[in-house]
Amino acid sequence: MSTQELGLDAIYDIAKKVMLANGCDVANAEALADIISRAERDGSHSHGLFRVPGYVKALRSGKVDGKAKPTIKHITPAVIQVDGHGCFAPLAQSVGLPVLVEATNQIGIGALSLLGVHHFAALWPETEYLADRGLVGIACTAYMPAVAPAGSKEALFGTNPLSFAWPRPGHDPVVYDMATASMAMGDVQIAARDGREVPLGTGLDENGQLTTDPAAIAKGVLLPFGGYKG
Amino acid sequence: MSTQELGLDAIYDIAKKVMLANGCDVANAEALADIISRAERDGSHSHGLFRVPGYVKALRSGKVDGKAKPTIKHITPAVIQVDGHGCFAPLAQSVGLPVLVEATNQIGIGALSLLGVHHFAALWPETEYLADRGLVGIACTAYMPAVAPAGSKEALFGTNPLSFAWPRPGHDPVVYDMATASMAMGDVQIAARDGREVPLGTGLDENGQLTTDPAAIAKGVLLPFGGYKG
Repeated sequence: MSTQELGLDAIYDIAKKVMLANGCDVANAEALADIISRAERDGSHSHGLFRVPGYVKALRSGKVDGKAKPTIKHITPAVIQVDGHGCFAPLAQSVGLPVLVEATNQIGIGALSLLGVHHFAALWPETEYLADRGLVGIACTAYMPAVAPAGSKEALFGTNPLSFAWPRPGHDPVVYDMATASMAMGDVQIAARDGREVPLGTGLDENGQLTTDPAAIAKGVLLPFGGYKG
Repeated sequence: MSTQELGLDAIYDIAKKVMLANGCDVANAEALADIISRAERDGSHSHGLFRVPGYVKALRSGKVDGKAKPTIKHITPAVIQVDGHGCFAPLAQSVGLPVLVEATNQIGIGALSLLGVHHFAALWPETEYLADRGLVGIACTAYMPAVAPAGSKEALFGTNPLSFAWPRPGHDPVVYDMATASMAMGDVQIAARDGREVPLGTGLDENGQLTTDPAAIAKGVLLPFGGYKG
């Protein structure tokens, strides 16, 4: 196997070209390429080029409409709803975030809800955007059941990721983004791809047994971060 | 030692009488008695009668003004600020929450900030109040450093409690309230009072060593729930 180093601009260009070649319009392709290159910049590889084959699959199957144009609705002066009409989530975010910032600057607090979108990707691009503009941000998303409650073998929770960020005068903002599972599913998949073991306690195999094999966990369930509380 | 059973009404009455006898006006006394009796109702003993001696001490030392009257300020139509002018926090909450509900019903999202208050007590009385009125609530508060980051022996974080609640049609709301420390400081103090051990991993003694002795942890530091993430 040979490896090749790519700069961030090259990563952006490759991602954009692949998306354009598989049914995306320029807006969808650039929104995805932006997220992918920023994820690689920050070492968040599970949201970088690793995702591209999945995005292509979603386009080819018709699950995602790579030409969909999000529409914006003000539910109240402080609550914005963006309907992606089947687009990739990053495009809906890029459309909604400037409107959210404007509303929040006016009302002091605001919310943006996204519907009709696919492949949310990481959450930090949203909260980082807000913190870069002097706001405190919090973001979350739903995900299919993948995490067994402590003591159970069956998936009930999503990986329920949570991101929050706040600005710091004269410094870069502080930005968090984490799955509330022991490990993000993307990182388990990358470990499986690379043949690396994961720590015991990350998840259970199909039979409900603890395992360090990420491929077995990907077929089984993740466990929640920190076990049970209380 | 003899024990005596008390009903919730009796707990409310005792708490109110003690507060009135120690410098509270009726509003402050009733706000505290309400929190104390509801904490006992829910088995949250660390916020029940256990707190009364601390509240009395805070009144006698002059730290808390048991006759202070909170004032309300609308910073924006959706952001409410209550200044307690040194009162107990539950009174400021009881003054601010109806205003928050009204603002949120109008704008779709709202925030309430409290300043000039002492002894926040539990967070769930706030979020439960919101969920009982059909709203999703989230509450947090600051606390002095009491939790060492994973790998450290020195307190840096507060116990940073977090509460959230949401309504369910036809059912009681779901209400969470937890310290992000391994255990709430109040529960460590109760374990120390009762001579019970706590699980290894709850905290460190003054020398930075793991211990199951809650009294030693109360003099040392708590550890964060779940260890480190990522």
